[in-house]
Amino acid sequence: MARIVMKFGGTSMAGTERIRRVARIVQRQQAAGHEVAVVVSAMAGETDRLVNFCREANPAFDPAEYDVVVASGEQVTSGLLALTLQALGCKARSWLGWQLPVATSDAYARARIETIDSAALLASMAAGEIAVIPGFQGVSHEGRITTLGRGGSDTSAVAVAAAVQADRCDIYTDVDGVYTTDPRIVAKARKLARVTYEEMLELASVGAKVLQTRSVSLAMKEGVRVQVLSSFIDDDAPPADSLPGTLIVSDEEVEGSKVERQLITGIAHDKNEARIVLTRVPDKPGAVAHIFSPLAAAGINVDMIIQNVSKDRGETDVTFTVPRADLARSMALLEGQQEEIGFNRVLSDAHVAKISVVGVGMKSHAGVASTMFKALADRGINIQAISTSEIKVSVLIDEDETELAVRVLHTAYGLDAVDAAV
Amino acid sequence: MARIVMKFGGTSMAGTERIRRVARIVQRQQAAGHEVAVVVSAMAGETDRLVNFCREANPAFDPAEYDVVVASGEQVTSGLLALTLQALGCKARSWLGWQLPVATSDAYARARIETIDSAALLASMAAGEIAVIPGFQGVSHEGRITTLGRGGSDTSAVAVAAAVQADRCDIYTDVDGVYTTDPRIVAKARKLARVTYEEMLELASVGAKVLQTRSVSLAMKEGVRVQVLSSFIDDDAPPADSLPGTLIVSDEEVEGSKVERQLITGIAHDKNEARIVLTRVPDKPGAVAHIFSPLAAAGINVDMIIQNVSKDRGETDVTFTVPRADLARSMALLEGQQEEIGFNRVLSDAHVAKISVVGVGMKSHAGVASTMFKALADRGINIQAISTSEIKVSVLIDEDETELAVRVLHTAYGLDAVDAAV
Repeated sequence: MARIVMKFGGTSMAGTERIRRVARIVQRQQAAGHEVAVVVSAMAGETDRLVNFCREANPAFDPAEYDVVVASGEQVTSGLLALTLQALGCKARSWLGWQLPVATSDAYARARIETIDSAALLASMAAGEIAVIPGFQGVSHEGRITTLGRGGSDTSAVAVAAAVQADRCDIYTDVDGVYTTDPRIVAKARKLARVTYEEMLELASVGAKVLQTRSVSLAMKEGVRVQVLSSFIDDDAPPADSLPGTLIVSDEEVEGSKVERQLITGIAHDKNEARIVLTRVPDKPGAVAHIFSPLAAAGINVDMIIQNVSKDRGETDVTFTVPRADLARSMALLEGQQEEIGFNRVLSDAHVAKISVVGVGMKSHAGVASTMFKALADRGINIQAISTSEIKVSVLIDEDETELAVRVLHTAYGLDAVDAAV
Repeated sequence: MARIVMKFGGTSMAGTERIRRVARIVQRQQAAGHEVAVVVSAMAGETDRLVNFCREANPAFDPAEYDVVVASGEQVTSGLLALTLQALGCKARSWLGWQLPVATSDAYARARIETIDSAALLASMAAGEIAVIPGFQGVSHEGRITTLGRGGSDTSAVAVAAAVQADRCDIYTDVDGVYTTDPRIVAKARKLARVTYEEMLELASVGAKVLQTRSVSLAMKEGVRVQVLSSFIDDDAPPADSLPGTLIVSDEEVEGSKVERQLITGIAHDKNEARIVLTRVPDKPGAVAHIFSPLAAAGINVDMIIQNVSKDRGETDVTFTVPRADLARSMALLEGQQEEIGFNRVLSDAHVAKISVVGVGMKSHAGVASTMFKALADRGINIQAISTSEIKVSVLIDEDETELAVRVLHTAYGLDAVDAAV
């Protein structure tokens, strides 16, 4: 017997028929002898509908009242899943955020989970009851409803799994696992059996949108084993004991598994950045602070930063990337600071893409970056910027070359599946 | 300064624009110097949508989970009204049923309010904050969400008004008050300035659907002064201090008012009943119990009962009415009991209407019933059954003659407005 927390997203909960399919998947887990808790999202589209109501009511809305409105979406699906499970003959009941309680900070609309009281949940599960928990919601210190910010249901699921010391947290999505790269770009992409938390964080933050980054960080911190798998599996499929998806686990567990360790785990791409170049910035202490302080104050996240080697006349070019949605605002801010910063011109390019190779294996292997640069150079792809971390190398290239670069690198690192269709 | 509880129904809350109109009405009350709490229904159609989800999920649904789902409708509108009031510059916040709390019985889906903790409400209102409370919902002894049954928001409003000792509970509806009869039938119907709780109960239960019967009973028990008025008034109208609607108050307050007391307050009609006749029932002790016990056990409400004068052969005909929706079930039950009851034939007629004249004034005046019978007889309308209470006389007639009977009686009791359009 294991204790398993299952999480289903909005697409899986969109309407009575889909909820019935979810209920059958949950029922199969319980029938396999497991203790089961389920975390659910609102029906697809419902949160958007509720957010729009709030915007129409008051464009500068009070986040505490916003939370009262938007938390209702998960309240509805948790009640409906409990009802549907009961119709299948299972014992089931819903536990709202304020009932467990899921105690959060008072930061309405972007609250952080502090503690989850697991006593009621453990008693319910031990009695053979399936606990159904609305994701995304909690309760503040002053007893009001909070929400965790968009996509917070993944985080709710991991937090519940940590609270009940679950053996596994299964996140059902509309993909069947984490791939070496986007299968829509590379037909030979392979599903990964296991990735480490660190790899998943890099893959998620650079554009592989399978899990919310926050939920992966929390899983790493709490040591929760997470499986990503598809909710659109055949109804007659065996229980998820066969681990059909991708397991996200600690570095140690991957090391201990019999799967041969790849140097590189996956290739990610991200088209949501834009490049800014400031030319002829004075090469003196404090110059860089003049550039980035105003951007930080405006809440703009700067990602890659490259300062070219100083030229002999004491000036340098500074290149960096910002989210594409913040480009216009960033340009306006920098132009307003031209005198303080002392640059000559500010240039921008929104048609860029960031390509990243990710893998814990590169910690102990040299040559990963040079393989990347050579493979791209061989195909004439120009690198505009480079940044690296312990388990990642990212390059900025022309957006039009995204797909080509991903395919080239997937092959160069030996990730192509042997048996996949060409 | 007065303390006023305002209640708005689903039609008034249907969408952002209508909620803004409600917010302006509420703001005017506060601007007039009053302490204000507002009780809201779900958006029109929303509760039906949620109930349908529950039916689809599980036709034999667990009422506790049903309540989790359907209570969300009022949660949404309470948050949205608070946001809209804030957009107008008012201080406002929502108080959900479990937050105040509104303590109810554990009878999910048809709970009764036991107590409302008014401390937080009174503090909020005294601080100039408008308290927005979702109607229809409360919390059970075991800390789960309850609902009061359909139309329960009127009852919530009256209960809140009693808890905060409000000077008045204003129920905003899609009509502008209680009329002497249905204005769609009688153009000369007059809006009543005041009616007593007892009269309102009789008018409501016999088909004048303005307020939920439960809410009127509660107002009578708690001595809450209720005003029924329209939410579709001109935005520039003066505050409701001018009492534009109908006040529902105690007998004493009506006596003490300067309004001349009418013998009859109003005429109601009800087409939701059906007549059943059992012929040649043995006229002996216990026979009637054999008829009505099985109906009561099946939850069928029998209304008018007429046992004809016994005929010389020791048999009698028994006539009574049941809700039209229960007619088929009632007939099947009775036919199954033919041997026990010992009747000859069972006849039914769904094409009947109940017409009632209601008025506290009739307590002290003879001749009310005979005026009714004569007026109907003069127009050739046949009376199929009669029942009376202290303040009401009801007759059962052919459904086709409903409108004629109402008009004839409205004139006969001197209720026609002098200045109304013909």
